[in-house]
Amino acid sequence: MISKARIKQIRGLERKKNRVAEGLFVAEGPKLVGELLAVVRPHYVAAEDEWLEEHKRELQGVPCDTVSLDELQRASLLQHPQQVLALFPIPQVEGNMSEIAERELTLALDGVQDPGNLGTIVRLADWFGISHIFCSPDSADIYNPKATQATMGALARVSVHYCELAQELCKTSAPIYGTFLDGQNIYHQELSSNGVIIMGNEGQGIRKETAACVSHRLFVPPFPTNRSTVESLNVAIATAIVCAEFRRKTPLSLGSKRRLPEQELSPWGKK
Amino acid sequence: MISKARIKQIRGLERKKNRVAEGLFVAEGPKLVGELLAVVRPHYVAAEDEWLEEHKRELQGVPCDTVSLDELQRASLLQHPQQVLALFPIPQVEGNMSEIAERELTLALDGVQDPGNLGTIVRLADWFGISHIFCSPDSADIYNPKATQATMGALARVSVHYCELAQELCKTSAPIYGTFLDGQNIYHQELSSNGVIIMGNEGQGIRKETAACVSHRLFVPPFPTNRSTVESLNVAIATAIVCAEFRRKTPLSLGSKRRLPEQELSPWGKK
Repeated sequence: MISKARIKQIRGLERKKNRVAEGLFVAEGPKLVGELLAVVRPHYVAAEDEWLEEHKRELQGVPCDTVSLDELQRASLLQHPQQVLALFPIPQVEGNMSEIAERELTLALDGVQDPGNLGTIVRLADWFGISHIFCSPDSADIYNPKATQATMGALARVSVHYCELAQELCKTSAPIYGTFLDGQNIYHQELSSNGVIIMGNEGQGIRKETAACVSHRLFVPPFPTNRSTVESLNVAIATAIVCAEFRRKTPLSLGSKRRLPEQELSPWGKK
Repeated sequence: MISKARIKQIRGLERKKNRVAEGLFVAEGPKLVGELLAVVRPHYVAAEDEWLEEHKRELQGVPCDTVSLDELQRASLLQHPQQVLALFPIPQVEGNMSEIAERELTLALDGVQDPGNLGTIVRLADWFGISHIFCSPDSADIYNPKATQATMGALARVSVHYCELAQELCKTSAPIYGTFLDGQNIYHQELSSNGVIIMGNEGQGIRKETAACVSHRLFVPPFPTNRSTVESLNVAIATAIVCAEFRRKTPLSLGSKRRLPEQELSPWGKK
């Protein structure tokens, strides 16, 4: 049974203002909650009996409500809630761009607006071993429930920083890449195993002042490469193609300094 | 002014049953409607005065309503309607898999469920010069408004076929590719400029009977390649990475037989 006050709290967390005030965000479903549970202690959990039983060791001392699917539906921010909903603390992510980009490959998002795109980018960053993403302050909030859900648990391993991009980029001596319609064909360029890849807003691309910091202008060619394009790529799709090409060109053995998995920190630090 | 009957008709087209019965689908916004307008005559248009004025030549004889943004809101299936909403006829797409795949690179989707994923895949197929996508009957419907909108106009150039995949695949002599966790690293494989690339359902991947038709099992490696992965890729993201690699390896000059843009047919045939 979930109390009315709790349902009100959960539904309130759909809004950023309330998330910031409470320092909490909502995660739903066994996949996402399970992966977060591996790195951070929840603030509160509502779940079906079976799920709670399975995780009782990790949940010692955590306020929990046993609920039916019907009750979960009343609190859930999803159309089709699944087994479990939890509140987790928003982490204080650490580290600055210039230091991190010197050591490893990172992403910077310049005003990506759609929460689904942002969550999908966090998920694919995780696949490609990218542990830090820097977002301009006007980008979507990764703790927006749509973004959080789209990460499919990658949020447990990828740190999402919000900062003034141009300001941070100009302090960074590592290579800075961006994609532009007049950039160089990415398949013909040398790509490094560290640095920053900037991806722009869905409609406007990369802002002028951010673009001014770019040291390598790239372009993902369409096919045939010479067609007069009316086509465009979704920003998460473009990010994936770019990251895949970086990782194809600089396999681990060629000098990536990324930490081994056992040394990795989650956004919440060492558990 | 849009009549009540028209609003009812438009809202009804959110459901597949009604789209099939009427042979119509809804497209919204200047980008999507504009690109469809270039290849097919609409059945009906509701738009702001300015947009109608700009397109009056193409709209001769088409039933049109001039509307305010408030009126458009009442009919629209979007949260934020933009300038124009139109009804278009659902095309009878032509051609069979074995013939088309002999000539050019195609995609097959085995139960992709999310309309947004399907629309995004149509959009990236267009970028990579893929003109035909074959979907299993249980895949999302490309005329679902969420799918249609996510194509960003690519629907005007890409034909989406619905058919029994395994049945069609077993008649196809062109190479048939699929991605599997135990497949071969895609970056180490030869890839052809024709054939079928099968992508599977979001949760379950490629069905057994479809997988049985695959001649080349591929794998998109994570980074580092040897990590024990809990990560996964969104199906549209995986499709993009695979298509990009096919196109990188087989540039046009190496023998793609895809038609030149001026010979291309839209899903509605020659206008």
